[in-house]
Amino acid sequence: MSARSGWAAVAAEAASTALLVLAVVGSGIMGERLAGGSAAITLLANAIATGGALFALITVFGPVSGAHMNPLVTLREALERRLGFAQAALRIAVQVLGGLAGCVLANVLFGLPPIMAATTARAGALLFASETVATFALVTIVAGMAGRPAHVTGAVIGAWITGAYWFTSSTSFANPAVTIARSATDTFTGICPHDVPGFLLAQVFGAALAIPLARRWFR
Amino acid sequence: MSARSGWAAVAAEAASTALLVLAVVGSGIMGERLAGGSAAITLLANAIATGGALFALITVFGPVSGAHMNPLVTLREALERRLGFAQAALRIAVQVLGGLAGCVLANVLFGLPPIMAATTARAGALLFASETVATFALVTIVAGMAGRPAHVTGAVIGAWITGAYWFTSSTSFANPAVTIARSATDTFTGICPHDVPGFLLAQVFGAALAIPLARRWFR
Amino acid sequence: MSARSGWAAVAAEAASTALLVLAVVGSGIMGERLAGGSAAITLLANAIATGGALFALITVFGPVSGAHMNPLVTLREALERRLGFAQAALRIAVQVLGGLAGCVLANVLFGLPPIMAATTARAGALLFASETVATFALVTIVAGMAGRPAHVTGAVIGAWITGAYWFTSSTSFANPAVTIARSATDTFTGICPHDVPGFLLAQVFGAALAIPLARRWFR
Amino acid sequence: MSARSGWAAVAAEAASTALLVLAVVGSGIMGERLAGGSAAITLLANAIATGGALFALITVFGPVSGAHMNPLVTLREALERRLGFAQAALRIAVQVLGGLAGCVLANVLFGLPPIMAATTARAGALLFASETVATFALVTIVAGMAGRPAHVTGAVIGAWITGAYWFTSSTSFANPAVTIARSATDTFTGICPHDVPGFLLAQVFGAALAIPLARRWFR
Repeated sequence: MSARSGWAAVAAEAASTALLVLAVVGSGIMGERLAGGSAAITLLANAIATGGALFALITVFGPVSGAHMNPLVTLREALERRLGFAQAALRIAVQVLGGLAGCVLANVLFGLPPIMAATTARAGALLFASETVATFALVTIVAGMAGRPAHVTGAVIGAWITGAYWFTSSTSFANPAVTIARSATDTFTGICPHDVPGFLLAQVFGAALAIPLARRWFR
Repeated sequence: MSARSGWAAVAAEAASTALLVLAVVGSGIMGERLAGGSAAITLLANAIATGGALFALITVFGPVSGAHMNPLVTLREALERRLGFAQAALRIAVQVLGGLAGCVLANVLFGLPPIMAATTARAGALLFASETVATFALVTIVAGMAGRPAHVTGAVIGAWITGAYWFTSSTSFANPAVTIARSATDTFTGICPHDVPGFLLAQVFGAALAIPLARRWFR
Repeated sequence: MSARSGWAAVAAEAASTALLVLAVVGSGIMGERLAGGSAAITLLANAIATGGALFALITVFGPVSGAHMNPLVTLREALERRLGFAQAALRIAVQVLGGLAGCVLANVLFGLPPIMAATTARAGALLFASETVATFALVTIVAGMAGRPAHVTGAVIGAWITGAYWFTSSTSFANPAVTIARSATDTFTGICPHDVPGFLLAQVFGAALAIPLARRWFR
Repeated sequence: MSARSGWAAVAAEAASTALLVLAVVGSGIMGERLAGGSAAITLLANAIATGGALFALITVFGPVSGAHMNPLVTLREALERRLGFAQAALRIAVQVLGGLAGCVLANVLFGLPPIMAATTARAGALLFASETVATFALVTIVAGMAGRPAHVTGAVIGAWITGAYWFTSSTSFANPAVTIARSATDTFTGICPHDVPGFLLAQVFGAALAIPLARRWFR
């Protein structure tokens, strides 16, 4: 068992996903409070904060756990036989739990109830298509970065997501653990629990399109 | 035939140009919707999203196809005898088609008709001069980055274009494939089809000035 | 005694901390003056300016002194036995003095009294929890970057703090020297002197949680 | 005579300084036009565009000419005996002329008279002190980056200046060639010709403080 599959890696996945969701949800709350109703300035701050956090977390935790923070990235590692399926299932579980913990932390730090059911509806064919495209692109980019230094991967993923918040109509959740976590906050970045399954399905669909194509592109 | 001139490279040019245009057009639409008429905040988001996408796409697809995403960059590669002219023509064709596909994708994801004729007039001597300068600068910078790691090239091109959206009066299209694609959206980043030929001419002119000079600067 | 513990290193800690506080406080003042009451735009500029300054200062002064600019980072170096406790105490002293000098400089350059008692109240359980989390995360990230090139560390710390200004309710002071310095300006980034001890306690608490955990993660 | 002191280097200094001033002045004009009077958003765009341009220009032209774009940087190279004084004088001359050409280009591309006397007063003890501090810091940082890869130096200088536009009351001109050029545009970034000598004196003073100190810090 390599160092990357031990206690440190599992704890790193939990902690990094929690901090990522804190960044996503927390910056959305701060933006709503300060921007006086300007969704554009809130989304700009949200995008920059998310990108900065992704860069730092992937660079720091990449050598410890791979810094997946995303069940579809972990699943792809398992499909590519770089991670056992039992280990992958464990990591996905802690990503989901860590993500929820990060959302609770954001709610609490900003003085809100720890868990709220989000009321922001995010449904329909357009958002389904958008999440499919967003996840296809993210998984392709992650696959293309295999073997590069963690800080380069982190910078690329951070910069891409900062942009993708703006150029997809769904604002590029592209991550099932983060999507589930975001159903527990009724703030700027929330998603109504009822709409979570559709997002997850679209994300799985996008990843399923990306994985075989990436295998041919990035041998 | 090297790996870079095969199927993977051609598909990479199509996909990367499509995603680039999605980033350009999509972030413009999102900006218009959220910014409540503030063109400055829309352009800021548009510039940051475009820069982030360029960084990621050049880093990921650079080792696959060179990540030109721009007919004038491909043409320069052919003139410098690093790519055959038939291969260059094929890549330029897929850049244009990929770009159009990216514009259609942006329109569709935001619930607009797949293809619209843009109505934003962009003509006149000032914009012609601006596109000449913008393309001269971009082609010079691309030439100066030859031989550097893909992620450094991507960061430089992304940062330059983020700035150039602001410091040229034409907002630095500087790319014939992207210019053609942007005629198919009647949104923030659109360009009236009637004005496309002038932009293309200015871009060719700027590249023609840059290529011989770059050959002396960056031997 | 290595070069890093001599005169140059001590002076570098003083100068870099002064320039960091100038960046933090000065950009807050400029933001307040230009943004016409928009706290969101002020915080955005404040965050970007702080991040840019951190990147530059860590890259430049890292090879000279380690560019800690933060007593808790210096303390961790001493606990990890990479710095003697006497030397650490000296560096912490000049960080505090340098930080105060940077705050005075910011006040003076913007035409304000050199020293003002800040009147911005920053107290309560939420902000205490926020500073604990913020410092836990920052110290973890700093520990995870040990042994990486200075410019990579600088980019990561700068990007993280740019984000953390937005996603923690306390705006991530996470630094006792900077916190003390910010009590001497009654502007956007000020903190009422009465509330400084609570922030310092939370920061020490956050670091105390991070240091043993980081030792296991980043061996 | 090395490659760096030939025709290519001199032309590179002229072209890079021209493009830098185009970025500074052009983005200020675009900001004024789009931001509807919000100086904060204009300065934000101005700072981001300047930073992006500095990063790209230093990375591209660094290996050709050193990409000084600043007479005080060139002067320091001469004082450190890395460049002859005659060559330094020639480079400073083309920096000033290139900078003016860049300002004319910005004015023309935005449909303004090629040369205007700026009317923005920038004088007084505070701005003198601010330019002294700004130039001290910039020259120190440039000196500290000696021997690092061009793209790292470019990223650091770009990030620092992006921040320094915000945290110095004079917005960190910190460059005599750029200061002179900015007297020829009566727009956001202009400086009244009458106030140029004071800025130049402050900049020389700041550099004179930085050079001997940097020699001890960065041996």
